[in-house]
Amino acid sequence: MNRQELFENICKKQSFLCVGLDTDIKKIPPHLLQGRTEEEAIVAFNQAIVDATADLCVAYKPNAAFYEALGTKGWSALEQTVAYIRSHYPDQFIILDAKRGDIGNTSALYARTFFETMDADALTVAPYMGADSVGPFLTYPGKWVILLALTSNKGSHDFQLTADAGGERLFERVLRTSQEWAGEEQMMYVVGATQGRMFEDIRRIVPDHFFLVPGIGAQGGSLEEVCRYGMNSRCGLLVNSSRAIIYAAQDEHFAQAARAAAAEVQQQMSLQLKKIR
Amino acid sequence: MNRQELFENICKKQSFLCVGLDTDIKKIPPHLLQGRTEEEAIVAFNQAIVDATADLCVAYKPNAAFYEALGTKGWSALEQTVAYIRSHYPDQFIILDAKRGDIGNTSALYARTFFETMDADALTVAPYMGADSVGPFLTYPGKWVILLALTSNKGSHDFQLTADAGGERLFERVLRTSQEWAGEEQMMYVVGATQGRMFEDIRRIVPDHFFLVPGIGAQGGSLEEVCRYGMNSRCGLLVNSSRAIIYAAQDEHFAQAARAAAAEVQQQMSLQLKKIR
Repeated sequence: MNRQELFENICKKQSFLCVGLDTDIKKIPPHLLQGRTEEEAIVAFNQAIVDATADLCVAYKPNAAFYEALGTKGWSALEQTVAYIRSHYPDQFIILDAKRGDIGNTSALYARTFFETMDADALTVAPYMGADSVGPFLTYPGKWVILLALTSNKGSHDFQLTADAGGERLFERVLRTSQEWAGEEQMMYVVGATQGRMFEDIRRIVPDHFFLVPGIGAQGGSLEEVCRYGMNSRCGLLVNSSRAIIYAAQDEHFAQAARAAAAEVQQQMSLQLKKIR
Repeated sequence: MNRQELFENICKKQSFLCVGLDTDIKKIPPHLLQGRTEEEAIVAFNQAIVDATADLCVAYKPNAAFYEALGTKGWSALEQTVAYIRSHYPDQFIILDAKRGDIGNTSALYARTFFETMDADALTVAPYMGADSVGPFLTYPGKWVILLALTSNKGSHDFQLTADAGGERLFERVLRTSQEWAGEEQMMYVVGATQGRMFEDIRRIVPDHFFLVPGIGAQGGSLEEVCRYGMNSRCGLLVNSSRAIIYAAQDEHFAQAARAAAAEVQQQMSLQLKKIR
């Protein structure tokens, strides 16, 4: 999916919501486990969440950690989830949140995992190891790298905000340098919703790119603030919500509750989208 | 395994070799695939390599990327490989090279994956997201974090060497800051063999820690140089070799060839260990 198609989906659905599938076997409704293996229960949960929310969002983001924690059966559930979204909702942008990054030949294997074995649209990648650790992910036409820039957590202050001798902070250097590797048609950036006005500084460096924005809801970021400082003329935002949507209820009505939670965010997003000139 | 036990193993075996199990289905001897599934072939290959080299090395390092690339069956092969080493060679230090790191609740799940679902001794972790992304890995007594500091690849120059206003380079800041999170009994650092005299600078900051050193062999680093600048009074080095050992031959004698290649490195290491005062 290219940037224009993503923007068209956003306009059509009046939503730039990404639903995070942080599916934890310990948090899904207990009734789903009756008569099912853990693997089947996770897949059933994800399918129900996706079916209930697909018209309200433009992207899904399974977080690999939640699946890997269950070992082989979790990995299988992840593959089945991606395949289900791909086949039933081909207009969805599928982001694998795995934060990979290694030397070239190893990154090439991660790329094979997420872009071939699974057919994700995008992968989150950590920048610490530099150009040749990111390059292999950029060899797949139509696939995206979402590079960590300024994350939503407290630890983002430890290294990402450190300024070099010229006053450039590490996240700014990542933004600037990585533009030599790919443009706004193949790269996005992770910018945490908790970063507030920092979005202004970031937009000065990358005015046209899409950002994947985690951190609204449970982590305390504000949608309104993210839009005020981060939105561009093609929206340029995919705002993620995980727990607040998928665990809106843990009873038999979990899917309807997830839908209601997603609808509420979508309505707020619809208002924000009217501000695009 | 604690630092003293690891050092005792090194003295006993006269080796600080870590064999990297970068097992690629496309590179293993073709005869192993006859009458076996891919998953079985990978496990059989790894078992043969481990059986042939276990008395010559103190650590094994499966690289998660190589297994994930095969999806569920690769993940299963990885689990079986770790279980095999753990049960047959309990004195081996098992490093999962997965370069993870995410917000706290997600890192906690990765920790569960590699320290509980699998019973690895150590995990490589990326520092970009800071303290709270690393902390969850440090809550397991006896388990280790191996933090990326100065990697072996060309891209290490993109961000890791950037100096802040006070002249401190990013990898130095990572070394210094991370010592507030854990000491030399729970943390090691990745330092690439290709970094030469940079080991001297690093030892000034972390004199007592172990380093995991990739990059000799295929990537061009020198064992002699690594030891000259990086060794400390308890060795302080786990030097990894992957391709040069496990793919020493690709015929029916691959295990003996791997043993011969490992023995050659072990002999060089034995000479280096004599230099410890």
